[in-house]
Amino acid sequence: MFSVILARPENLENIGLVARAMKNTGFKDLRLTGVKQLGAGAFRTAVHAQDILESAPRFRCLDEAVADLQAVFAATAKARTNFVSMSLEKAVERMLAFAPSAKIGLLFGNERTGLTSEELKHSNFRFMIPQAVRQPSYNLASAVLLTLYRLFTSSPPAEKKTAAPPLSRREQEECIRRIIDILKARSFMHETNQRHVTEMIYDLFGRLVLTDKDRRLLLAVFHKGLD
Amino acid sequence: MFSVILARPENLENIGLVARAMKNTGFKDLRLTGVKQLGAGAFRTAVHAQDILESAPRFRCLDEAVADLQAVFAATAKARTNFVSMSLEKAVERMLAFAPSAKIGLLFGNERTGLTSEELKHSNFRFMIPQAVRQPSYNLASAVLLTLYRLFTSSPPAEKKTAAPPLSRREQEECIRRIIDILKARSFMHETNQRHVTEMIYDLFGRLVLTDKDRRLLLAVFHKGLD
Repeated sequence: MFSVILARPENLENIGLVARAMKNTGFKDLRLTGVKQLGAGAFRTAVHAQDILESAPRFRCLDEAVADLQAVFAATAKARTNFVSMSLEKAVERMLAFAPSAKIGLLFGNERTGLTSEELKHSNFRFMIPQAVRQPSYNLASAVLLTLYRLFTSSPPAEKKTAAPPLSRREQEECIRRIIDILKARSFMHETNQRHVTEMIYDLFGRLVLTDKDRRLLLAVFHKGLD
Repeated sequence: MFSVILARPENLENIGLVARAMKNTGFKDLRLTGVKQLGAGAFRTAVHAQDILESAPRFRCLDEAVADLQAVFAATAKARTNFVSMSLEKAVERMLAFAPSAKIGLLFGNERTGLTSEELKHSNFRFMIPQAVRQPSYNLASAVLLTLYRLFTSSPPAEKKTAAPPLSRREQEECIRRIIDILKARSFMHETNQRHVTEMIYDLFGRLVLTDKDRRLLLAVFHKGLD
């Protein structure tokens, strides 16, 4: 089960084009953050996909928008220092390795700024769509389309893993915050490296897509192992 | 060498988005038919790809736009009775089987009407982009993007054919017209089936992507063999 999350989209026509691309490729769940109201521009470009716009929930914050998901893949146009990235093709393989019932989010940032470091913390994985030139990057609706089309035309792997299901993003993020709090309390971070180390920890433990068992082990390690 | 041909595009913003998609995926040659003038709308959406718009030749007729090409692949949203069609994935395999020096055209029709039967006659192959639902079809710029991205991310086959190069589209079409004239002169067609048979002949001999040798053989067969 896949959800498309647009973080702070500015251009209403882009939102409509995203809805149309979702319809074309067979996806339904659209989530928006930072959008007060959907005007005529969005409905005009959402040809035959207005129902997706009408049923799209709007969230104030990204953490609420991803809270119930179990794995979030964020699209980035440029590589980020503290967040590991993979290609679209690898990302889709990774998505399809989850059980079909897993709730997976595809996260796309604002047209001009892309995703902020703060927003990236709400994702497990980052991916980049290959392009021939550095500039321009893909248009927002184009990035969504290429991602969904790849998913739509790829087959899931023949043998399914029967691994334990991941925690919700809310639980995963709570666990990561507890680890960071423990590290802070033990003076593992200081003011100058705090931002850097925090981002690397979000990246590292995000990529694990924590299960309940992982969480128990990790918290035990950090609580007791570091005494 | 690939050229993108837009036949009678209506929406200037779509033309700009096509230019941007071409830049993103590393293609340069854009050709337009039925476009009198490129206004501000096209340049606004062609972010960092205005040079592609500025150098795009505009043709009055499609036959002029494809005259120097050697193989033309036409995108269609719906299957046509008299023209065989393949999937985008198969079409890209077929494109990459040509020598890198072959001049290949990617032809896309008007946003509302798609390509007419008359326009399809100027193509060798037809392809459809898979979609989850019948309606809506992909937006024009989206269809171009998906096609170019697939080309950009696919590798040519390891062993290259060293087949003879195809004739230009102008020569191929002249040959097909001569065959049709011969068939007409021999009363192979009559008024009621003429349109149907003509389209099937364009499809059949189009898919051969005729070489000079093919042409000589075919014309000999039709001139002498049918006496």
